[in-house]
Amino acid sequence: MKRARIAYNGAIHDASVIDDRLVLADGRSPDMDKVVWLPPVQPRTTFALAINYADHAKELAFKAPEKPLAFIKGPGTFLGHNAVTRRPADAQFMHYECELAVIIGRTAKNVPAADAYDFVAGYSVANDYAIRNYLENYYRPNLRTKNRDGCTVMGPWMVDAADVADPMNLDIRTFVNGEQVQAGNTRDMVFGVPALIEYLSSFMTLSPGDVILTGTPDGIVDVKAGDQVVTEVQGVGRLVNTIVDDQTYFQRS
Amino acid sequence: MKRARIAYNGAIHDASVIDDRLVLADGRSPDMDKVVWLPPVQPRTTFALAINYADHAKELAFKAPEKPLAFIKGPGTFLGHNAVTRRPADAQFMHYECELAVIIGRTAKNVPAADAYDFVAGYSVANDYAIRNYLENYYRPNLRTKNRDGCTVMGPWMVDAADVADPMNLDIRTFVNGEQVQAGNTRDMVFGVPALIEYLSSFMTLSPGDVILTGTPDGIVDVKAGDQVVTEVQGVGRLVNTIVDDQTYFQRS
Repeated sequence: MKRARIAYNGAIHDASVIDDRLVLADGRSPDMDKVVWLPPVQPRTTFALAINYADHAKELAFKAPEKPLAFIKGPGTFLGHNAVTRRPADAQFMHYECELAVIIGRTAKNVPAADAYDFVAGYSVANDYAIRNYLENYYRPNLRTKNRDGCTVMGPWMVDAADVADPMNLDIRTFVNGEQVQAGNTRDMVFGVPALIEYLSSFMTLSPGDVILTGTPDGIVDVKAGDQVVTEVQGVGRLVNTIVDDQTYFQRS
Repeated sequence: MKRARIAYNGAIHDASVIDDRLVLADGRSPDMDKVVWLPPVQPRTTFALAINYADHAKELAFKAPEKPLAFIKGPGTFLGHNAVTRRPADAQFMHYECELAVIIGRTAKNVPAADAYDFVAGYSVANDYAIRNYLENYYRPNLRTKNRDGCTVMGPWMVDAADVADPMNLDIRTFVNGEQVQAGNTRDMVFGVPALIEYLSSFMTLSPGDVILTGTPDGIVDVKAGDQVVTEVQGVGRLVNTIVDDQTYFQRS
């Protein structure tokens, strides 16, 4: 099942996507292009992983970390499918990051990797933009780099965990204006989904609605205003976002 | 006005504290020792500042930062007044950090320092524990150091901004088992409250319920199970917390 959260006709709805149709609980089926897509869950604690693909570590000239390099993102940075994201005027280098998003479904503490999938509600696609000129070093995915308004895009929906046969073998790809710029597979994560849940739950409690953004492979390039950025995770979804400059973002629309 | 959130008689209540009495909206006045004190706000985005007092930077043998070193804490780490905090078995060095907590009251974007106080709802006291053995370096207040369950204590209440004449001149002190171990004054912050609001709001939107934990001065020592830790901010409040070991924390009680 694909589960979405949308705004339509004056209200927020949980919806499902069946045979490329959006279906609300009461049976209505609004046009997919006429609704506002929200992130499929209202994120509670969101963890993001830095440098969790060896090739991306190499691209940034960093060593792969010995422990997961996780940091927390605030709730204000999220947008859903089909939204525009602002390239702020101070960005010298802004790049997308296509990521598998793991949505926790049950309270998890001290979960061994072997049981970790029991605690996953489902999966979504994230595009976790970074304003690279503030990166500084790999210990510090600081807030100016990683917590801008509208720079963490997630959706279009969550696919139930039961419908994803092997989360550790999914192609992930990014297209800018139709051209493929990033291609990887979740099997190349440094710390896979079970290891991440084991690690995080070893020292803190994970709760339903928590989200783990599992990192991105190499192939990141600067994006500019006007670019359409499509991030895809095989069997999960295809998330569309468009970059705009300050002028477009703030103009009367 | 001192505003608290408490659990009492089967429900959660907003309460005020008047002449050392707790008063609920309907006029009831439960015994302060018979209620469960919750954090005065349910934190939305919580920012914590690393190394925001020059003396503490020196104590840790770090240079004071050139820009605020802010990171985000998750909602699961908060506790209110009079709670117990677990010293996890893997902690080799666990220390309190007495901090002035700033609670945002209005949506804030691009706020100049001169106007920053207009966006503050009030102030509280925080005790932002750290498991020091995972600190690694000052770029990385990582989750094992700074995001354990129950390691961010806040309360007992929020004091309205209008009742705090000068937030940048408040004594802050910590007592362990009655002995003073930490003493400083908010005037010694590297980045004061107006500068922090200007900085954070310059690249992202702050929202009502967001909390800024403004950092701690020097004087941090290891705390052990059984220690009572009292953190105080002058004119704001006195926050009590007790450290327990795993065995006590998990025993039937």
